Amino acid sequence: MLRIRPTALIAASFALALSISAQAAPPTKAEQTLKYRKSLYQAIAWNFGPMSAMAQGKAPYDAKEFAMRAERVAFLAPMLAEAFPAESKDVAGSELKPEMWANRADFDTKMKDLVDKSAALAKAAKTGDFAKSKAAFFETGNTCKNCHDKYKKD
Amino acid sequence: MLRIRPTALIAASFALALSISAQAAPPTKAEQTLKYRKSLYQAIAWNFGPMSAMAQGKAPYDAKEFAMRAERVAFLAPMLAEAFPAESKDVAGSELKPEMWANRADFDTKMKDLVDKSAALAKAAKTGDFAKSKAAFFETGNTCKNCHDKYKKD
Repeated sequence: MLRIRPTALIAASFALALSISAQAAPPTKAEQTLKYRKSLYQAIAWNFGPMSAMAQGKAPYDAKEFAMRAERVAFLAPMLAEAFPAESKDVAGSELKPEMWANRADFDTKMKDLVDKSAALAKAAKTGDFAKSKAAFFETGNTCKNCHDKYKKD
Repeated sequence: MLRIRPTALIAASFALALSISAQAAPPTKAEQTLKYRKSLYQAIAWNFGPMSAMAQGKAPYDAKEFAMRAERVAFLAPMLAEAFPAESKDVAGSELKPEMWANRADFDTKMKDLVDKSAALAKAAKTGDFAKSKAAFFETGNTCKNCHDKYKKD
């Protein structure tokens, strides 16, 4: 028979309660910000996908869908502005390289470049001209790459 | 001394390789859709927060911010339309109750209600009238609740 002392049981339930309360602890503001940041990149990437396939000739050009995806990216891009507050600097689980914080002005310029180029992409896509849309898409893609190369962990 | 047979080592590294390759397996379309779905709800919730605080009198009314958040929610809400495709039915990690799939028309009506009410909210918020904005906010919040009560796991 297994004999368990009552004190051991109390200690065990206390440890369990602690672990449950740790799990249920509300996320910090920095953790919420990181979730928001990731959700924006996720939503941008999802809408980038079909445009990328069309621009690369892997899917037939659908002007209406292309314009819809471009408009979404142009709307989502400026929302990233509030996704990198100073308070999120040391949050765990981020793919952001810490050197961004010492190069904030450069990072913000790169972010503005995404906002400007995705706005131009949405405008080009509305014309329904594939060549123009494709060129604007690759220019937008380059703004992603420029920033990721410097500030995103591999 | 611990003696390990070479075959055991090979088996162990094979298991490790398998587990690494399992981790690195690209997400399925259903898993990507679930990530996209969650990212949209996350982005909506983030922008709902400050409006909720203002509507409840927990934060001072800032007409400009309220209108910006309302516009974002109104833009994000219709994006949910492609976040519940049939292929995502059995995806793991979803908070969607399985009964939605047998009540798709009702679910879609509730989703349309969110889209309509959030569009009305964005319109009301643009006027800068707090009473109107607040009323439209609570109406939008109710469309969330109506759907969550029925189709979201606790």
